[in-house]
Amino acid sequence: MKQVYLDNQSNTKLDKKVFDAMIPFFTDYYGNPQSIYSLGAASKDVLDLARIQVANFINADAKEIIFTSCATESNNLIIKGIAESLKNKGKHIIVSVIEHFSILNPLKRLQKEGFEITYLSVDSKGNVNADELKNSLRKDTILVSIQHSNTEVGTIQDIKKLVDIVKSVKVNDFIVFHTDAVSSCGCLPIDVKDLNVDALTFSSSVMYGPKGAAALYVKRGVRLVPQIEGGVQENSQRSGTENIPAIVGFGKACEIAKSEQSVNTQKIKELRDKLINELPKKIEYIYLNGALENRSPCNVNFSIEFVEGEALFLLLDAKGIMAASGSACANKNLKLSHVLTAMNVDVAIGQGSIVFTLSKYNTQEDIDYVLEEFPKIVSKLREMSPLYSYFLQTGKRKEAGPGTDFEHAHDHCHISED
Amino acid sequence: MKQVYLDNQSNTKLDKKVFDAMIPFFTDYYGNPQSIYSLGAASKDVLDLARIQVANFINADAKEIIFTSCATESNNLIIKGIAESLKNKGKHIIVSVIEHFSILNPLKRLQKEGFEITYLSVDSKGNVNADELKNSLRKDTILVSIQHSNTEVGTIQDIKKLVDIVKSVKVNDFIVFHTDAVSSCGCLPIDVKDLNVDALTFSSSVMYGPKGAAALYVKRGVRLVPQIEGGVQENSQRSGTENIPAIVGFGKACEIAKSEQSVNTQKIKELRDKLINELPKKIEYIYLNGALENRSPCNVNFSIEFVEGEALFLLLDAKGIMAASGSACANKNLKLSHVLTAMNVDVAIGQGSIVFTLSKYNTQEDIDYVLEEFPKIVSKLREMSPLYSYFLQTGKRKEAGPGTDFEHAHDHCHISED
Repeated sequence: MKQVYLDNQSNTKLDKKVFDAMIPFFTDYYGNPQSIYSLGAASKDVLDLARIQVANFINADAKEIIFTSCATESNNLIIKGIAESLKNKGKHIIVSVIEHFSILNPLKRLQKEGFEITYLSVDSKGNVNADELKNSLRKDTILVSIQHSNTEVGTIQDIKKLVDIVKSVKVNDFIVFHTDAVSSCGCLPIDVKDLNVDALTFSSSVMYGPKGAAALYVKRGVRLVPQIEGGVQENSQRSGTENIPAIVGFGKACEIAKSEQSVNTQKIKELRDKLINELPKKIEYIYLNGALENRSPCNVNFSIEFVEGEALFLLLDAKGIMAASGSACANKNLKLSHVLTAMNVDVAIGQGSIVFTLSKYNTQEDIDYVLEEFPKIVSKLREMSPLYSYFLQTGKRKEAGPGTDFEHAHDHCHISED
Repeated sequence: MKQVYLDNQSNTKLDKKVFDAMIPFFTDYYGNPQSIYSLGAASKDVLDLARIQVANFINADAKEIIFTSCATESNNLIIKGIAESLKNKGKHIIVSVIEHFSILNPLKRLQKEGFEITYLSVDSKGNVNADELKNSLRKDTILVSIQHSNTEVGTIQDIKKLVDIVKSVKVNDFIVFHTDAVSSCGCLPIDVKDLNVDALTFSSSVMYGPKGAAALYVKRGVRLVPQIEGGVQENSQRSGTENIPAIVGFGKACEIAKSEQSVNTQKIKELRDKLINELPKKIEYIYLNGALENRSPCNVNFSIEFVEGEALFLLLDAKGIMAASGSACANKNLKLSHVLTAMNVDVAIGQGSIVFTLSKYNTQEDIDYVLEEFPKIVSKLREMSPLYSYFLQTGKRKEAGPGTDFEHAHDHCHISED
């Protein structure tokens, strides 16, 4: 059976060139870079090189890169590291309501410790409102964290403009602007100097690199309290033996992305647009979530009325199409993901949400296959749907009943950045 | 030139069988285990298997294993996780003074937050005193953390006895006993039920597994506050996309260790004993650090008078012998490591310390080569030593002068567990 992998925001396929670069560092050059004997020095050299490659990708200085084990760790580090570093200056933090859980959950903890969090709302397309940000700034605001693009609906925020607002209002001289760019770095050019951010998270595993390596960019001069403490690695900002093979792979993935991303992005965007344009021609009552403009080139998110996301997901899988369900993702008590809920998507409609995220490995054939199979699956499900049947007979929509089984739905969540 | 790698407590060579087991999970089976489509399910299956392999190795239940990115993270998690979980019941923690920095440095932070730390002394062989532990227990003691064996001098603590004391004194019903077994798990059988510990740290990268995976065993019923928060991975105890290739490798490494460790340990111990017995026959004024009994089978640590550890280290490297220097390791202001200092090793003598840590890949030829080259290097260095010259002429020892350059010595530290 044909296999079409369209869950690339969850995890990308490792680039063979990246894996080849990693191989020598598993069994041959296994020295600890903190040792100065030959085997250690070899590891130190490639660690230095990878740091330059990773920094170059976002136009940063190598010294501004902290390697971590995953994006979730990077996000935890910036949130808790800044909170601890600046708690004597202020305890107010601003984020958007559609951030990843690796931002939102650490904030819940901080709230218990006396921090105040302002959650910026988003409009129906997932855009943060610049005025709301401006009005939320306070003298005791220590951190603003707004994602570069959303994992689930692909909405790209105008980070440069949002940073401008924060820096021009000048409520204080210590406020830090962080952006979680995990969902962007696989398919968009990112320049920290142009964005003018103070900190940025990105991850190897969604840009054709290996798992086990991610980065936190921290602009020179910004001080944070380390969260994993021990030895002197990463300039004591993140202790623990460096995962050299993974870091080498991350470096190589950044180098490749830098050189081939613009071509890939154009191709991916065309495939995306084909899905976005063609699916509504083949399926009635289908609604695109997120904007058409300022949308991640790799993201397609549709709500399909009269079907359930979970069922869609399973039947797609049976046809070899691997996607993410956009409903019931993170919390078994919610019928919609926190992102769709924040965008005020109708619960009955949003239940039937499916997310396709594309990669450079996807082909025209992949998309044609989805365009052929997906409408059939939707038809099949609707044939079994009492809601659809009622709608056909009456022309009216029934509200979704309470009996829907979302009990185990959180197990299936895979809109996770890292 | 012959290469003899004797820094296996810093990092072991990856077992080829382990790497072979990992390979399919880089480029072929790259699905996110949180996804239920076929590619994700394959990852979920091997994640489950690895958890069983890792748990079996220490005689634990698979549900009691939390996968982390490295031992440093595991140690941070238990220290901070228990501190946060039990801070309303007590703020007193007991550790030995010779713990790894991934235990000691998080405690420094906790001290600033109002926790009280008791540092148990050790005797000249590195042994914790059971009575001192008993007398340190308080009603508000929430955690005792004592390493299973020391990375630097190999001293094995009688953890079972120390746990017995803590559990029999019964100062309260919530005290948690943790042991950092990173230095032991590569060469000693570890059984958490026999030891009766509540928590235990161990790491893939020093047991012939890959970097990027480690574990924290947490006994059923012990609650800790997660430190890296986000998604539902590791039962929400440690969020972040699972590093499947590394975890698969860790599982395989544990399986191999379980089956072949007793044979390897016997061989390694014989090589160790050859070094320990033969070197003093070839070098005068050489002193074994740590005990002969209850010593890790892979550890050799000698102080050699009238030479400097750094110089020894460099000349050994020039002969292809990779070891660790036991001096000036972790702090540029200290002339000796914190471990040798705690053992009351004479500063002048301890400066010339060198640590050899063996693995299953070491051979009789390796040891013979060291026995041949090492004494020559010591002679060469002593020929250049004014202290040795003074001693030869007068029969007296001069105190080490203040001019020794330890300024950059911490850069060379590589007695790091992870």
